[in-house]
Amino acid sequence: MYELALVGIASGNPEHLTPEARRTLGAADVVLLPSKGEEKADLAGLRRALLDGLGEPRPVVAPFEMPMRDVERPDYLGGVEDWHDRVAVAWATTLRASLPEGGRAALMIWGDPSLYDSSLRIAGRLPANGLAVSVRVVPGLTSVQLLTAAHGIPLNGLGAPVLITTGRRLREGWPDSVDRAVVMLDGACSFSTLTEPERFRIWWGAYLGMAEEMLVSGPLEEVANRIVKTRAAERARHGWIMDVYLLARDEA
Amino acid sequence: MYELALVGIASGNPEHLTPEARRTLGAADVVLLPSKGEEKADLAGLRRALLDGLGEPRPVVAPFEMPMRDVERPDYLGGVEDWHDRVAVAWATTLRASLPEGGRAALMIWGDPSLYDSSLRIAGRLPANGLAVSVRVVPGLTSVQLLTAAHGIPLNGLGAPVLITTGRRLREGWPDSVDRAVVMLDGACSFSTLTEPERFRIWWGAYLGMAEEMLVSGPLEEVANRIVKTRAAERARHGWIMDVYLLARDEA
Repeated sequence: MYELALVGIASGNPEHLTPEARRTLGAADVVLLPSKGEEKADLAGLRRALLDGLGEPRPVVAPFEMPMRDVERPDYLGGVEDWHDRVAVAWATTLRASLPEGGRAALMIWGDPSLYDSSLRIAGRLPANGLAVSVRVVPGLTSVQLLTAAHGIPLNGLGAPVLITTGRRLREGWPDSVDRAVVMLDGACSFSTLTEPERFRIWWGAYLGMAEEMLVSGPLEEVANRIVKTRAAERARHGWIMDVYLLARDEA
Repeated sequence: MYELALVGIASGNPEHLTPEARRTLGAADVVLLPSKGEEKADLAGLRRALLDGLGEPRPVVAPFEMPMRDVERPDYLGGVEDWHDRVAVAWATTLRASLPEGGRAALMIWGDPSLYDSSLRIAGRLPANGLAVSVRVVPGLTSVQLLTAAHGIPLNGLGAPVLITTGRRLREGWPDSVDRAVVMLDGACSFSTLTEPERFRIWWGAYLGMAEEMLVSGPLEEVANRIVKTRAAERARHGWIMDVYLLARDEA
């Protein structure tokens, strides 16, 4: 019997790690850690540094090779489902090898396991891979909260709703029912596709909570180019980037 | 010159308090604490218990009387603006009295200061009250993350958007552009007003992260009455309730 804790680690900054997350990682018999594949080297290093900072006894690390998602597949969702299947096989294989008798495993999740993260869906495939497992979620700060805290702004307008969405969705057009939206998973600066940029204000942040944190905000028309250039330059410099932004329409 | 830190304390459970939040509260010259008014006695007690748990030196507490919002005013937003004005006066008066020379003050915010919380807007009124102040936000776990963690579920559908909204807005009808919505600030079980309840699943949670935590989930038609009854009973028993829920439409 296995216990798998999906532990939200926010930005990877220990100042943002809750005592519950710290305790759960420290009490794990093994921490699954993606060793290569989609995982960027810097990020793997940040995860390891966070574990090192937990003190003794250091949890045992079980590295696993992260399968690559087939980005050429025309059906996006089908490609994701197939990828989740293969990640579940990698987890099950690694769990069986590192804990043959069962035990407590943990996985470190950037941000929070609930938000645009696949871990819960992948964990749900473990029984089909012959693994009896109980899954527990340890919440972590999301990049959304790190963004609003860094800019010192509310997420929602007064009494108003806010949408959390993806770059892919934003490219289909501004969602009519809201005046504020947070955009995640946007590798393409999709704010540039908005048809009425003069109506928007943007608050953008990258590497939030990390030493490299960068912030840009202002009327979209004025700062859009700066964000596009900054993003490209920083991504080239680090080899990766994690960013998120809030857009507000028609606010004074 | 004043520094005011708005510190997200999540559920008030020390296990959910980040090191940054703990350090900021511990380093404050004074912590503003609402002593009566809208603040429920239990909640004020929870805030004090959290401060007591920080160890020595305990920050000095500056209690202030929380003005009441005029709930009879027909214009909801106008009533809120007026209330914010009066809270800002209370903060400014208390800051001047407790820190005549200026210094570092902190305020404990349930959840995170960005999400359906007025503190940033109230703090923005301090300069108009003659107070030179720099405001800093310390992010905290929101009830949204505590809800999804407790239920062990993702917030969003795969690659899909999710709306964060209020009970007031939900009563105007289901937002067409999304299949998932988190509903906050709902004192009226507004899920009961949905016209096609058979299409929805609900995950409800109250007192999240606290000893009294309660969870109900299932098809809306099956569990709606149970939530309505549980909510009324628990609210009567405690004198207050904090709850939040996620609705998903047309999911298998």
